[in-house]
Amino acid sequence: MENEQQIFGIRAIIEAIQAGKEVDRVFIQKEASGELMKDLMKVMKRNDINFTYVPVEKLNRLTHNNHQGAVATISPVGFYDLETLVAQTLETNKAPLFLILDQLSDARNFGAIIRTAECTGVSGIIVQKQGSAPVNGDTVKTSAGAVFNVPICKVAHIKDAIFFLQGSGIKTIAATEKTETSLYELDLTQPLAIVMGSEDRGVNPSVLKVIDEKAKLPMFGSIGSLNVSVAAGAFLYEAVRQRQ
Amino acid sequence: MENEQQIFGIRAIIEAIQAGKEVDRVFIQKEASGELMKDLMKVMKRNDINFTYVPVEKLNRLTHNNHQGAVATISPVGFYDLETLVAQTLETNKAPLFLILDQLSDARNFGAIIRTAECTGVSGIIVQKQGSAPVNGDTVKTSAGAVFNVPICKVAHIKDAIFFLQGSGIKTIAATEKTETSLYELDLTQPLAIVMGSEDRGVNPSVLKVIDEKAKLPMFGSIGSLNVSVAAGAFLYEAVRQRQ
Repeated sequence: MENEQQIFGIRAIIEAIQAGKEVDRVFIQKEASGELMKDLMKVMKRNDINFTYVPVEKLNRLTHNNHQGAVATISPVGFYDLETLVAQTLETNKAPLFLILDQLSDARNFGAIIRTAECTGVSGIIVQKQGSAPVNGDTVKTSAGAVFNVPICKVAHIKDAIFFLQGSGIKTIAATEKTETSLYELDLTQPLAIVMGSEDRGVNPSVLKVIDEKAKLPMFGSIGSLNVSVAAGAFLYEAVRQRQ
Repeated sequence: MENEQQIFGIRAIIEAIQAGKEVDRVFIQKEASGELMKDLMKVMKRNDINFTYVPVEKLNRLTHNNHQGAVATISPVGFYDLETLVAQTLETNKAPLFLILDQLSDARNFGAIIRTAECTGVSGIIVQKQGSAPVNGDTVKTSAGAVFNVPICKVAHIKDAIFFLQGSGIKTIAATEKTETSLYELDLTQPLAIVMGSEDRGVNPSVLKVIDEKAKLPMFGSIGSLNVSVAAGAFLYEAVRQRQ
């Protein structure tokens, strides 16, 4: 956690959220109660802020300061507004490539994917506010710093982001085993957003229902699944290859 | 380290090496001396066993037993003989795909690459005895168990392995930025071995001198380098695509 900025104290966290600070996650003491804590819960809910109940020992490890039962971590990067990013991208790039991460949960996988996204010319990465890996010190390190170069959008719902992209003329393709279509059969040269799922469950079924195409990578052997950052690399580089 | 088998005590380690056990690495106490320790050094040298000098505290953390200044870790998998593996592979597979890891040092990268190798139908992975990541608990875990399915050969020198593969009609291609040739310009359908380098230095210059082809992945952005397991995935999947 040493690479992350922190805010501690209930009132300070409420004010940070209301001031639009990039609060990544709030750790709340398990037995916490009181009016101010209720206010914090309301503000977090209204702003789709991730929070976790933890034992007081965890909070004491996070900070030596008087935390009053609440510690927030602040993202080292700012996030982009999806609509602005898509509009700006389409102005200069006729066939942009976006990447959507549907509840990817491991910070190191997130970092490795951001690094690959930078190397493959991805215009932006879209993640969901709730249930996604944080942008923390691990993410910054495994991204080799790419996290400062690739725009990241946090959206309330992945499905709404997909509808918006589709409405903007961008085709959405999900990486999933639940299809007979190989990635190599698809045309990836048009405006495109690739959807990668979480480490354990893949792309959510409700997301699979709304995307335009499903594609899988050929699989040999008996393990039958790749690390998600390797799979993302194979998808993105196939798009790069076709676009050359 | 909890997934690894250990041997402790100088004489026990000497006997394990001489009995042909898969000793992965030996940790030697910094100030160690004595006739028996000299014998161990000789046996390790003769058998190309990796060893590291460490403070006694490290040994005490590795084992609670009386280690006499030496602890060895034993690989959870057996290793294949390169010549036997290549001969057996060529009997059944006209266009095998091998992967050579030139002093890759991170166990988790190694594991992720083994997993990708299993998914892409790689016939065997070749690593150098000295200076390579061990097959340890981290490797097993990040490989998702694939380490038990993909044959791994440990060779004394990567260059000699390359000469042997070339003599067996297998083309060798190194992944390196030190070329103008894109991976996508090459024919990957013939018998092939792909060489990936270490995390920090890439493929060794002396290895680059003897391989048949060099290839790079297209690179956008300013970071200009991928995680090695992602790069290996992009190379292996391009071979899979061409071979379909």
